[in-house]
Amino acid sequence: MPNDLGIIKTQSFTLTDELTLKSGEKLGPVTLAYETYGELNRDKSNAILILHALSGDAHAAGWHDGDKKPGWWDNMIGAGKAFDTNKYFIISSNVIGGCKGSTGPSSINPKTGKPYGLSFPVVTVEDMVNAQKKLIDHLRISKLLSVAGGSMGGMQVLQWTVSFPEMVRSAIVIAASVTHTAQQIAFHEVGRQAIMADPDWQCGNYYGKAVPARGLSVARMIGHITYMSKQSMEEKFGRKLKSDGNLKYDFSSDFEVEGYLRHQGDSFVQRFDANSWLYITKALDYFNLAQEENLVSVLSRTKSSFLVISFTSDWLYPSYQSKEIVKALKISGKDVTDIEINSSYGHDAFLVEVEGQSKIIPPYLERISK
Amino acid sequence: MPNDLGIIKTQSFTLTDELTLKSGEKLGPVTLAYETYGELNRDKSNAILILHALSGDAHAAGWHDGDKKPGWWDNMIGAGKAFDTNKYFIISSNVIGGCKGSTGPSSINPKTGKPYGLSFPVVTVEDMVNAQKKLIDHLRISKLLSVAGGSMGGMQVLQWTVSFPEMVRSAIVIAASVTHTAQQIAFHEVGRQAIMADPDWQCGNYYGKAVPARGLSVARMIGHITYMSKQSMEEKFGRKLKSDGNLKYDFSSDFEVEGYLRHQGDSFVQRFDANSWLYITKALDYFNLAQEENLVSVLSRTKSSFLVISFTSDWLYPSYQSKEIVKALKISGKDVTDIEINSSYGHDAFLVEVEGQSKIIPPYLERISK
Repeated sequence: MPNDLGIIKTQSFTLTDELTLKSGEKLGPVTLAYETYGELNRDKSNAILILHALSGDAHAAGWHDGDKKPGWWDNMIGAGKAFDTNKYFIISSNVIGGCKGSTGPSSINPKTGKPYGLSFPVVTVEDMVNAQKKLIDHLRISKLLSVAGGSMGGMQVLQWTVSFPEMVRSAIVIAASVTHTAQQIAFHEVGRQAIMADPDWQCGNYYGKAVPARGLSVARMIGHITYMSKQSMEEKFGRKLKSDGNLKYDFSSDFEVEGYLRHQGDSFVQRFDANSWLYITKALDYFNLAQEENLVSVLSRTKSSFLVISFTSDWLYPSYQSKEIVKALKISGKDVTDIEINSSYGHDAFLVEVEGQSKIIPPYLERISK
Repeated sequence: MPNDLGIIKTQSFTLTDELTLKSGEKLGPVTLAYETYGELNRDKSNAILILHALSGDAHAAGWHDGDKKPGWWDNMIGAGKAFDTNKYFIISSNVIGGCKGSTGPSSINPKTGKPYGLSFPVVTVEDMVNAQKKLIDHLRISKLLSVAGGSMGGMQVLQWTVSFPEMVRSAIVIAASVTHTAQQIAFHEVGRQAIMADPDWQCGNYYGKAVPARGLSVARMIGHITYMSKQSMEEKFGRKLKSDGNLKYDFSSDFEVEGYLRHQGDSFVQRFDANSWLYITKALDYFNLAQEENLVSVLSRTKSSFLVISFTSDWLYPSYQSKEIVKALKISGKDVTDIEINSSYGHDAFLVEVEGQSKIIPPYLERISK
């Protein structure tokens, strides 16, 4: 059921040069997958870059030929939607390290002719953004009206404002933080351990063989628990039993929530690469906007306006982390609009709280566009 | 360094009859490991039964010969401590399904001469308590001054008050709930999946061979994250880096919290049986004090006084779950004392917040003893 955007095709762009990474290593060639929606205006002042979360991809809106569901933020991007394609030219970029058309551990290493596996260098959010900058240059856009994203997308947004202040008129940072707490690192680390504990992982050299499905599935299940709120999980599942309504007194799944998690784990394995999970979670854990100096002085060098959105029931990236960003921005004298949206959906709210976000984002973009 | 309790030995008691389980299956012979501290008085009115949490055992206090550290609640049990062995006779009982001297999946099935593995029947908290009742009968105690425990121990306490109301003068329920929410089930289920995903698990038939160490380790790591509060994890680890203070840009552990979790996982494997983890988490997920009728009517049949303790930063068994118990008890017209202790230690607080608990428990026991 194509909408107004019609059938969308993912495009790809290969950087002309090698990318020098934060670690000092060089990576090349580097390809980025991206999609665009809407039209760039004559003075190229209406471009918005959309950035995705851990398991997302460039396919943010519209339908691919044969899609059973549209892009991951289709409810937010399109004609008359929060990111209105009648007004704005939307670019959705994938990240390096991923497995959705951009260069990552499952890509062929040109030096060996085989998939990188763990010989792929560890990349950071800064590296992801550096690659995206080349894409924006390639599109001949010198200044983005906005850079927007939730979760890891929000972290990339923050990095954009710091790395390329002259290129970002406004930043929409949703359900994100300037760095990971110990608990956030801990959840990621357990997921990585689950993958690396899977004998099929084979130190990352599993391409063309059995994939570490059980490990990746467990990692994804852990993720899912943290993406939902205690309340939304309770409302959706509570103690509801599967099918016949009786406890089974065995280790098959009794409760609906168990079946849901297993299904989420199993289906994720079909669409995501375990090594990419390792690399991207690592990039998130490494992310620290204020690593070398304090947050206020880092953010004072940015030149964007900011819209910072958080959600009341998000316990993975709690509102207080957004408030830390807002406080530092205010101390830096920046134009900052902040809102904590009431939602029971937990961290997933950035994907599903369409109404709340759609009330805030259009007038903000309208004001920034002037 | 033996304390006033001297060197303690774990004892064991084997039930004379088979135990009929909630599932309808029969289990036998059934052995329970237990320890005692202090002296039973002449009229047998000073006995307190202590019940442990998921990974606990009968060794609650004092030192075993060769111990490097004392029992898990040694800071709470002893002369002049919260459970004062100068005044009270303390019995600490293990649970069936475990691996610490009581009958569980690693025990020999007398019908086959081999370890039960998954042929061990699924047991419930009710079954655990039914076995403990036989132990108390064996000790010729007709009424317990108190039954006390935290986490799963608190759930056993609640079950004791409902199953054997005439035998329980008072119940000390710490950091517990009358049933598991979807999120609590979810965390357990992911841990179980991690164990069952380990090829060494072999459908539970791993005894005498390699144990599913990687799976159990991941399950334990998940557990640890939920036992600590976000705050305590942040205070203890934050983003502190291991040893040399540099990011490694690989998948060894960079952060102290990662090393801590790996260590917790690895060392747990040395002391706990993976199948017991499956059985005991299942018992917890099945626990539902108000399964067949509402909580008020269930609790109105109890004959105990209640002390209900929760901790502000416990997000695994949050205070609101304790408040639900307290509310139902008050509606039932029971004698109930409740306190929410300020603590940053999360669910682990029941093990470490000695001072707060030691202020509340002695005067409560004093009052009940009169």
